[in-house]
Amino acid sequence: MEHLSVTDAQQRILESVKTLGAEPVRLEQSLGRVLADDVYANRDLPPYDVSAMDGYAVLSTDLALVPATLAVIEDIRAGDMPARTVHAGQCARIMTGAPLPAGADAVIRVEDTQQVSAEALPPNSLPQAGERDAVSLREPMFDAVQINVAVKSGNDIRRQGEAMRNGDAVLAAGTEITPGISGILATVKSAQVRVHRRPRVAILSTGNELEDIDDPVDPDKIPNSNSYALMAQVQALGTEPDLLGIARDDPDELAEYLQRGLKFDVLLVSGGTSVGVHDYVRPILESLGVQMKFWRVAMKPGHPVAFGVLPGNAGGNSKDTFVFGLPGNPVSSMVCFEQFVSPALRRMMGHARIHRRSISARLTHNLKHQPGRTEFVRVTLARDAGGYTATSTGAQGSGMLLSMARADGLLVVPSDSAGLAEGSMVTVQLLDGTVFQEDPIFKE
Amino acid sequence: MEHLSVTDAQQRILESVKTLGAEPVRLEQSLGRVLADDVYANRDLPPYDVSAMDGYAVLSTDLALVPATLAVIEDIRAGDMPARTVHAGQCARIMTGAPLPAGADAVIRVEDTQQVSAEALPPNSLPQAGERDAVSLREPMFDAVQINVAVKSGNDIRRQGEAMRNGDAVLAAGTEITPGISGILATVKSAQVRVHRRPRVAILSTGNELEDIDDPVDPDKIPNSNSYALMAQVQALGTEPDLLGIARDDPDELAEYLQRGLKFDVLLVSGGTSVGVHDYVRPILESLGVQMKFWRVAMKPGHPVAFGVLPGNAGGNSKDTFVFGLPGNPVSSMVCFEQFVSPALRRMMGHARIHRRSISARLTHNLKHQPGRTEFVRVTLARDAGGYTATSTGAQGSGMLLSMARADGLLVVPSDSAGLAEGSMVTVQLLDGTVFQEDPIFKE
Repeated sequence: MEHLSVTDAQQRILESVKTLGAEPVRLEQSLGRVLADDVYANRDLPPYDVSAMDGYAVLSTDLALVPATLAVIEDIRAGDMPARTVHAGQCARIMTGAPLPAGADAVIRVEDTQQVSAEALPPNSLPQAGERDAVSLREPMFDAVQINVAVKSGNDIRRQGEAMRNGDAVLAAGTEITPGISGILATVKSAQVRVHRRPRVAILSTGNELEDIDDPVDPDKIPNSNSYALMAQVQALGTEPDLLGIARDDPDELAEYLQRGLKFDVLLVSGGTSVGVHDYVRPILESLGVQMKFWRVAMKPGHPVAFGVLPGNAGGNSKDTFVFGLPGNPVSSMVCFEQFVSPALRRMMGHARIHRRSISARLTHNLKHQPGRTEFVRVTLARDAGGYTATSTGAQGSGMLLSMARADGLLVVPSDSAGLAEGSMVTVQLLDGTVFQEDPIFKE
Repeated sequence: MEHLSVTDAQQRILESVKTLGAEPVRLEQSLGRVLADDVYANRDLPPYDVSAMDGYAVLSTDLALVPATLAVIEDIRAGDMPARTVHAGQCARIMTGAPLPAGADAVIRVEDTQQVSAEALPPNSLPQAGERDAVSLREPMFDAVQINVAVKSGNDIRRQGEAMRNGDAVLAAGTEITPGISGILATVKSAQVRVHRRPRVAILSTGNELEDIDDPVDPDKIPNSNSYALMAQVQALGTEPDLLGIARDDPDELAEYLQRGLKFDVLLVSGGTSVGVHDYVRPILESLGVQMKFWRVAMKPGHPVAFGVLPGNAGGNSKDTFVFGLPGNPVSSMVCFEQFVSPALRRMMGHARIHRRSISARLTHNLKHQPGRTEFVRVTLARDAGGYTATSTGAQGSGMLLSMARADGLLVVPSDSAGLAEGSMVTVQLLDGTVFQEDPIFKE
C-alpha cells in the first residue's frame, strides 16, 4: 500500500465521519456547541423606534436655525412608554433605548445641547391645557434646552425591527455558539437549545514500556504522557474523553481493551500500529470487524498513523465507531491528532470550520527538507513590521514534547519542497488556541 | 474629565489588577490554567539511549560495505532490557523506544533492510557458546538481515536525557497548560498541579426596560441579552460566572445588588453608567467605597465604559474587587469586554498573553472615520493569494448583535485616522476563538 498524502488521508476520514444527532442543552452550558436547528426571532427588536443616544427627541424641522431653544415636555427612560406627542417648539428628554415619542423624528445627543432657563422659551412652545391633563402620574417638567446642532430626520434613531424582525430566521442550523450567539439566543429567549451531540471519545495507550501516572517511578519505563496530551487535545475541542489506561503488548489483553474502546464513537489508540514485528493492534482491530481505510501517510512526524471504521451494528454498537491509530511517540501523536482527529471530531460536532487556523509568516532561517513527505515543523511566532515571523523551536526530534509545548504553531513544509530559504513566506497552523478555519489552506 | 485612549484605559486597569493566588487542581481539570510553580523533571527521558525507529541496532563500522548481512542475535521491544552485547557482524531487531543494546552505536530502519536466510551469514557472526548461555528465558533467533544503507554512528538513536534531564526545571511558573504541557505534566507524573486561582465574576444587568429570559414576552420590553453574552465571554476565558440578574433603576435596589456583586473578585455591571439623568450606578458605587479610575474612553462603540476598584477590607471582602461599568448596548458591551475585561481576567488568571490575537488584513472597501476615537469595526475575514481580506459586516449600529455574532474579528481604526482606503492593510483582532498574543499591537 502506498503512502497517502496528508490531504488524501484527511479526505478519506471526512468521507467516513458524519455529524452526530441532536440533544437539548441549557443556554448556560451551550458555549462552543453547534445549533442543530434554525432559530427564529419571536419579536421585533427594537420593539419600536428607539433613541440610539442619551439626549433629546426633536422635530428636525425645528432646527432650521440653530441654536434653537425648545420646551422639554417629557422625560422618557428606557422601559417607559411616552405619554405625550412632541409638537413644534417642543422636545422630550430621552435615554438610550427609550421609545421615540410621537411627533419626534430625530434625536440630538446631550453633548450637543445645553440647559437654559424656561423663560427663554416662546410662549406657544409649552403644552396646551388639554395636553397637560393627559399627563397623570408624571410631574410636568417644562424646562428648556438649547439645541446647538441641526440634524436630518432619523438622526440617532434605531428603527423598529432594525436588529431583528419577528419571525425571521436569525440563526441557521450549523452555527457555532460563540458569546455573540449566546446573546442572540438570550434575545429570542432560548433558555434551552438543540445542539449536535459531542462524540464520546476513548483513549487507549499501548506498550509494555509504559508506566501510568499513579505507578511509582521505574527508571526503566517510560511515563504514559500520550493519554494525557490526547485527553487535553480532546478537552480543548469541548469534549470530555474516557481514559481506558494502558494495554500491554499481549493479543488477549489488547483485544479486551480494544473491544471496550469500540463501544465509543471514536477510539484513539496510541502506539502499536507500526510496521514492527510486535504490531498486534491492526490485525486485532481487523478481527474485531474494523475496516482499515489507511495505515500509512507521507508525513513527518506522524508516520505511522492509521484510520479505520467499525460499521454500526457490528461490535454491539448501533453507530459507526471511528478508530485512529496514532504513533506512540508523543509529538507525532499530537501532530497526527491535529491533522486527522481534530477535523473529524469537529465535523462530528457539526462545525463548518474544522481545520486549524493557519497564517502566513516569514521564515527566519533556512530549513532543510527532502521531497516526499509533508513535514510539520514546530515553530514560534513573533511579529515585526513585515508581519509574522516563524522560527523553528530547534531540535525536531519526535521525542521532544517540550518543543511541541513551546511551539506557537506547525510550519507546513509541502511534500514537494526541496527546502525553504530564509525569508520565504510559509504557512503556519496556529496551535495555541481553538481558532479554526474552513479550509486546510496549505498545499502539499 | 477627558476621554482616555483605549490604551491608556487598558493601562489603568492593568496597573490595578494582580495575578491571583494558587490552588491545587487535578491534571484532568487543569487545561487552560496557568502554573503557579516551576515544575521539575524527576527522571531522564529517554531513561537510556533508545531507538528512534523500528529497525536494527548495529555497529556502524560493520556497514563500510553495503549491502551487509548481519546475524540477528536478539529481539528488543520497548519496555524490554537488552540481554546481549552486539558484536561485529551482529545486530539486534529493535522497536521504536526500545533500549539500545551494548555494543550497538546506530539504528537502521526496517525499510532499509531485508530478511535473508541465516545461511548467508559468515560463521563467526553468530553468538559464541558462552554468550548463548547468558540468554535464559529468551528464544535465540539467529536469523539474518541484509542492511542496504551505511549510516554514521548515532543514526536514529535518541540519547538518554535528550528530551528531559532529571532535576531540570522543565516548565516555568506562568506557563499556560496547553495539551502539550498536559503531556509534560503527565511525563513528570504531576497528577495534581498548583495553578493560579480563577477570578469569581459576577454579572449584573440594570434597567427598567429589561425582561429576563424566564419572563413572558412583553413587546414593550427588551430581552436581557447582555447577561448571557457576558456570561459566555467569561466562560470562553475558562471561568464560570454568577448571574446576579436584573436590577431596576431604583437607588435602593441598585445598592443592594451592587453590594452583593462587590463580594466577588470582579463585578460586571451592564448599563447604567451613561451621562444620562438616570445614572444612579456610579454615585452608588462610590458611596459603597469604589474608587472610580475612569468613566470615559474615546472609542466607538463602547462609550460609556467605567472602571473602579473597591480596595480589600472595604465592603467585607479581604481582596480588591474590580468593577467594570459596561454599556447597556449589546455590541458595545461585548466590544468593551474584549478590550478591557478580558485582559484583566487573563492577567488575574496568570496569563502572559492577555490580548486578543490580531492579524494583518487588506481592506476590501473604503471606510469612513472621523478622528478622535478608536473605532472597532466588525468584519468578516477571507483569504486570497495576498493573504487575509477584511470586509465590514455592514450596518455597524450598536444594537446589531447579529453582526457581532457573524464577525470574525474587530478591525481597529486608529483614533487619528481620517478614514481608510480600499486596499489598505489594517489590523484585525480575532474574535472567533481563544488565541491570544502578548501585546495589543494596534496603534491608536
